[in-house]
Amino acid sequence: MNHSVIRFILGYVIGFLGLFLMLPVLVALIYREDVWFDYAIVALPCLILGIINSYFRPKNFTFYLKEGFFCTGASWVVLSVIGALPLTITGEIPHYIDALFEAVSGFTTTGASILENVESLSHASLFWRSFTHLVGGMGVLVFLLTVIPLAGGDGSQFNLMKAESPGPSVGKLVPKLKNTAQMLYLIYLGLCALEIFLLLCAGMTPFEAINTAIATAGTGGFGIYSSSIGGFNVACQWIVAVFMFIFGVNFNFYYYMLFHHARLAFRMEEVRMYSFLTALSIGIITVNILGSSAGLFDALTKAAFQVTSIQSSTGFSTADFAVWPQTSRCVLVLLMFIGACAGSTGGGIKVSRFVLMGKAVHKELISYIHPRSVRKTMMDGKPVNHETIRSNNVFFGTFMLIFFVSVFVLSFENIDFSTVFTAVIATMSNIGPGLSLVGPAANYAFFSDISKIMLIFDMLAGRLELFPILMLFHPNIWKDVFSKRRCKELKHAGKILKQ
Amino acid sequence: MNHSVIRFILGYVIGFLGLFLMLPVLVALIYREDVWFDYAIVALPCLILGIINSYFRPKNFTFYLKEGFFCTGASWVVLSVIGALPLTITGEIPHYIDALFEAVSGFTTTGASILENVESLSHASLFWRSFTHLVGGMGVLVFLLTVIPLAGGDGSQFNLMKAESPGPSVGKLVPKLKNTAQMLYLIYLGLCALEIFLLLCAGMTPFEAINTAIATAGTGGFGIYSSSIGGFNVACQWIVAVFMFIFGVNFNFYYYMLFHHARLAFRMEEVRMYSFLTALSIGIITVNILGSSAGLFDALTKAAFQVTSIQSSTGFSTADFAVWPQTSRCVLVLLMFIGACAGSTGGGIKVSRFVLMGKAVHKELISYIHPRSVRKTMMDGKPVNHETIRSNNVFFGTFMLIFFVSVFVLSFENIDFSTVFTAVIATMSNIGPGLSLVGPAANYAFFSDISKIMLIFDMLAGRLELFPILMLFHPNIWKDVFSKRRCKELKHAGKILKQ
Repeated sequence: MNHSVIRFILGYVIGFLGLFLMLPVLVALIYREDVWFDYAIVALPCLILGIINSYFRPKNFTFYLKEGFFCTGASWVVLSVIGALPLTITGEIPHYIDALFEAVSGFTTTGASILENVESLSHASLFWRSFTHLVGGMGVLVFLLTVIPLAGGDGSQFNLMKAESPGPSVGKLVPKLKNTAQMLYLIYLGLCALEIFLLLCAGMTPFEAINTAIATAGTGGFGIYSSSIGGFNVACQWIVAVFMFIFGVNFNFYYYMLFHHARLAFRMEEVRMYSFLTALSIGIITVNILGSSAGLFDALTKAAFQVTSIQSSTGFSTADFAVWPQTSRCVLVLLMFIGACAGSTGGGIKVSRFVLMGKAVHKELISYIHPRSVRKTMMDGKPVNHETIRSNNVFFGTFMLIFFVSVFVLSFENIDFSTVFTAVIATMSNIGPGLSLVGPAANYAFFSDISKIMLIFDMLAGRLELFPILMLFHPNIWKDVFSKRRCKELKHAGKILKQ
Repeated sequence: MNHSVIRFILGYVIGFLGLFLMLPVLVALIYREDVWFDYAIVALPCLILGIINSYFRPKNFTFYLKEGFFCTGASWVVLSVIGALPLTITGEIPHYIDALFEAVSGFTTTGASILENVESLSHASLFWRSFTHLVGGMGVLVFLLTVIPLAGGDGSQFNLMKAESPGPSVGKLVPKLKNTAQMLYLIYLGLCALEIFLLLCAGMTPFEAINTAIATAGTGGFGIYSSSIGGFNVACQWIVAVFMFIFGVNFNFYYYMLFHHARLAFRMEEVRMYSFLTALSIGIITVNILGSSAGLFDALTKAAFQVTSIQSSTGFSTADFAVWPQTSRCVLVLLMFIGACAGSTGGGIKVSRFVLMGKAVHKELISYIHPRSVRKTMMDGKPVNHETIRSNNVFFGTFMLIFFVSVFVLSFENIDFSTVFTAVIATMSNIGPGLSLVGPAANYAFFSDISKIMLIFDMLAGRLELFPILMLFHPNIWKDVFSKRRCKELKHAGKILKQ
């Protein structure tokens, strides 16, 4: 284990967290709230630690997938543990487990809240909750890659990005990985700025527009009102709905659209399937809720908003879909599992995983019918790596295992099956609201601490695509962390690479 | 496609079905019921067809996995379609889709019923329902292998058995496959006879004992009373509970116990895990329902019965677990997914698949931590074939896809999520009762025909481990069935094998 590079990266993560925490300090000062001090006393030590850390650059930057995964898992735990502190210190969420739940929910862009009354929070805390979505949406380590000078070659950096980027495979858009990361953040922040502008035009105040837009960008879903987006006008609702859809699309699509031939973008099977599923679900739900709505347009607006919200794993709401007819609820629960595209800021199992699984099943069938035929699985016109298919299959199994274990742990709550089931999927897919007791009009406050810790685990596991978090629970990794041997091995490998 | 061998096997299946249908004729004559004629007019043509068929032996018995899978899928469809006829002809289930649902539920050992009042059926029909479990439990093609002279070598026969036997891999217990099949049936019928004897001792009438025992042996679950097993005394309940557990165990266990060292039997990881899960679930549920029971023994009896019933996928009940506390219900739903052991008569995803998946996940984690280490996945002290692991992974994905599609189709029923969700898993895992509207005290009559057809598909897909049934929906297989080319290829292969 390359200790020094892990220390270096974690130090930077803490440093940037300090920097990020200065933003709510600023917001508090603007709105003349006393909580600026509470945020500042967490921000300052982080900043100082980060600055000191940056002076001690490691000599050897070589690191492998193991270090990448460990770094990612550890960074997210550190982010959450520190990011939750101000919420408790301000006294707004006095119980630390609750604050941790809220912070993890923010960073993982879940948007599940334990707060009964969001309006009672200070502007600073409201902004901090939304801002965690922006940080977590594209990923804090991807952000690091765009700004800090990480030597060690693309290989090492790739191992860092691979652990944090959602989806079965990570592609480099441009030859240098650093430029890929910058490109992704550029698209991300550009779209976010566009949404802020449009929301301002549609009549939101700047504070509302900024908060809503950054929570949409990260597909998070923390609202600044208990009514979520329901209190805003229809224009705002449609803008948010369209942007939720947009942030659930694979970002490669936008890259292709901007810098390549558009044909390449429209050939992406995942984006086509994602759009098809969205349209189909909106259609079914519109018809299904027509009876209880004020006309076709109202039904369409509600259906479009809730579908894009659930499928992109955002979790905003304009209607309490927990009281919708069963057909609509079932469709939404299925969308919770499917989720958004890989390479987007959205959660869930990801559309491309389902497409790949569908192809694997078809190949399996064909292998029985024509045992001697050898077929390559194709995606977007290119053959898919065998390793990608294998780990995709394992992902499904792992997801199911974690899902079952979580349902088992939550079953001790003695609450109804729909609540348990949808609470687990809503956190694992980083959506937020589920059905019944965790519906859009409700919250997660009533769970016991053990259940909350289980759900915190689920949110982190879901956001980091299971393995970086599972790894933190494997004894071998901690043996490695406390061993010096591998450190020497890496020094050796680093020397070879330099030669 | 080797047409003549498929014709030959399907002809035998129909012939034996005719023979089996003579049993309810006999029962009807004993109880002097008029329905003997209705069963006879279905049985006779089947018998005649079977006898004529047996005179036209195919020249070439060579066939591959494709033929094996196709034969299996087709045989089960034919069995169900014909086996449902007498139920409609007697007028006891006038709607044919309902009768088909009941027959498929019987053959697949699901035990889900559309009947409101089981007691109104004739003795012949009650017996036929239970008897379908016995046929379906160990498999009709495995039965064929024990009795008919199928040339073509072990390879060909193995392809037939592989498609029908549950679990990730099929092993031969003794060198000749025919003897393996006979051995399995011997253990199966031996245990069944033992259960009949014990139930008679415990006070059941012969008709009750025979019906209950054969429905337990196939882990089916059709009862002859609406109260299922609830109306019998505690001794009977415990006997049934123990035998449900026994029939959910991998039959290799009994083979090892009887003819080998017992140590080999107790080394089977799957059986150990299965026993552990049963004990754990009984423990949790006993504590959970203690408050609503008449003392510890009553709670233990109820818990043990329901747990063994659900985990072995039998579906008998002595208590309405749909009204139990949530913790118990959640545990039971999880058991529905896990199911029994591979190589048993039980359903579900199978304990060994979960054990294998757990190992695959662990291996994946290890591959990140020690990328250069090469580890073999071990099971029962032996390395597991790579192909077995791969197809196990694909199985999980396929199961999830079919599960989601089924939930989607059933969601148009506009009934609550628990009902839809558990109806699908209770049929796919061949259990029978689910929760809410399909609980132990309810039935499947209220579903629309489209939903019933979906559930019929789920039962067949679940029993035959997905692919033999999915194959029937692939256009390529039908192209093959109607092509002559492959027939010639096989003749050629047959000649080579003989040389």
